[in-house]
Amino acid sequence: MINVLKQPTNWTWVEQAIAHLNVILLDHSHCERKAAGVALNLMFRYPSNTQLVRQLTAIAREELEHFEQVNQWLERRSIPLAPLSSPPYGAGLKALIRPSEPNRLLDSLLVSGLIEARSHERLGLLAEYCPEPELAEFYRSLMASEARHYGVYWVLADTYSDRDVAKERLEELAIRESELLSTLYPEPRIHS
Amino acid sequence: MINVLKQPTNWTWVEQAIAHLNVILLDHSHCERKAAGVALNLMFRYPSNTQLVRQLTAIAREELEHFEQVNQWLERRSIPLAPLSSPPYGAGLKALIRPSEPNRLLDSLLVSGLIEARSHERLGLLAEYCPEPELAEFYRSLMASEARHYGVYWVLADTYSDRDVAKERLEELAIRESELLSTLYPEPRIHS
Repeated sequence: MINVLKQPTNWTWVEQAIAHLNVILLDHSHCERKAAGVALNLMFRYPSNTQLVRQLTAIAREELEHFEQVNQWLERRSIPLAPLSSPPYGAGLKALIRPSEPNRLLDSLLVSGLIEARSHERLGLLAEYCPEPELAEFYRSLMASEARHYGVYWVLADTYSDRDVAKERLEELAIRESELLSTLYPEPRIHS
Repeated sequence: MINVLKQPTNWTWVEQAIAHLNVILLDHSHCERKAAGVALNLMFRYPSNTQLVRQLTAIAREELEHFEQVNQWLERRSIPLAPLSSPPYGAGLKALIRPSEPNRLLDSLLVSGLIEARSHERLGLLAEYCPEPELAEFYRSLMASEARHYGVYWVLADTYSDRDVAKERLEELAIRESELLSTLYPEPRIHS
């Protein structure tokens, strides 16, 4: 577990996910598309921040590649692309982003970093406990990117903000992030 | 010129563009990012349309790759990333997208296709008349993608709509597209 996370994922999440691998795969597809969308939106909002634009272009490209890969898994399992209700996690984190600059940029980067860190942890659990070896291997193959993305978001937060301010805010947000996951969402999702 | 375009680009545009290659490069960077954004937005709006999602994922990835390449050109010429006012072209075309389905999907695909066709034509003019051979070569290298993207958008329009309806609407939109470019925008832009 990336040490920024305050609470590890509960075992009940693993049981729920393993029992509904197809839904988890479909939700995972949505997560990758959303992650690409978030990176692109930040590039649109801060078009002159060269470092941010460069790093997030790379992240967006990689998320789209993963999106394609997950969709190939869906196709192989004959799972049609379909909308899926979102757990409160993403909206709960988004609500913590303060609306005025420079807080908005800092919070946006930290929230994205936390989501990547949590995704890294959960894909790791899927890699470990998924009963299908090939699918488990796929989850394992994605983990390194999630960890790297967490690192990129943290470095950008550190670039565009005072380090102590960023650290303190990350601490606050990490607490809320774990709280948001303390009650298991009844539907199987990557972030339930 | 892809034969969907009703009017070829006026020579005054070529003169304006060649005289302001740095601004054209910066605007081009914005165009590539916007093109990726448009593809991703369509994927968000129609997440269950498998063909659309698959094709537009590939397009979005490629636009982001071009965005990176254009940004490398900017860096090499020490042009900082900066916002740039948009010519009326994009907003003018967007205003033609009818708000209710299935028209909205059809119009969105056709408008994107027309923009790709026009970009193909204009990058071709830059490739031909740009006085810097290496930059001209770069423009030439992008042309094939633009033509292919036009083809993808047309095939999707044909997939999700009746062919005669799509053809007739493309004809209408193509006339408006040329009208939007009939007066040269005073600032040098890819779509001025």
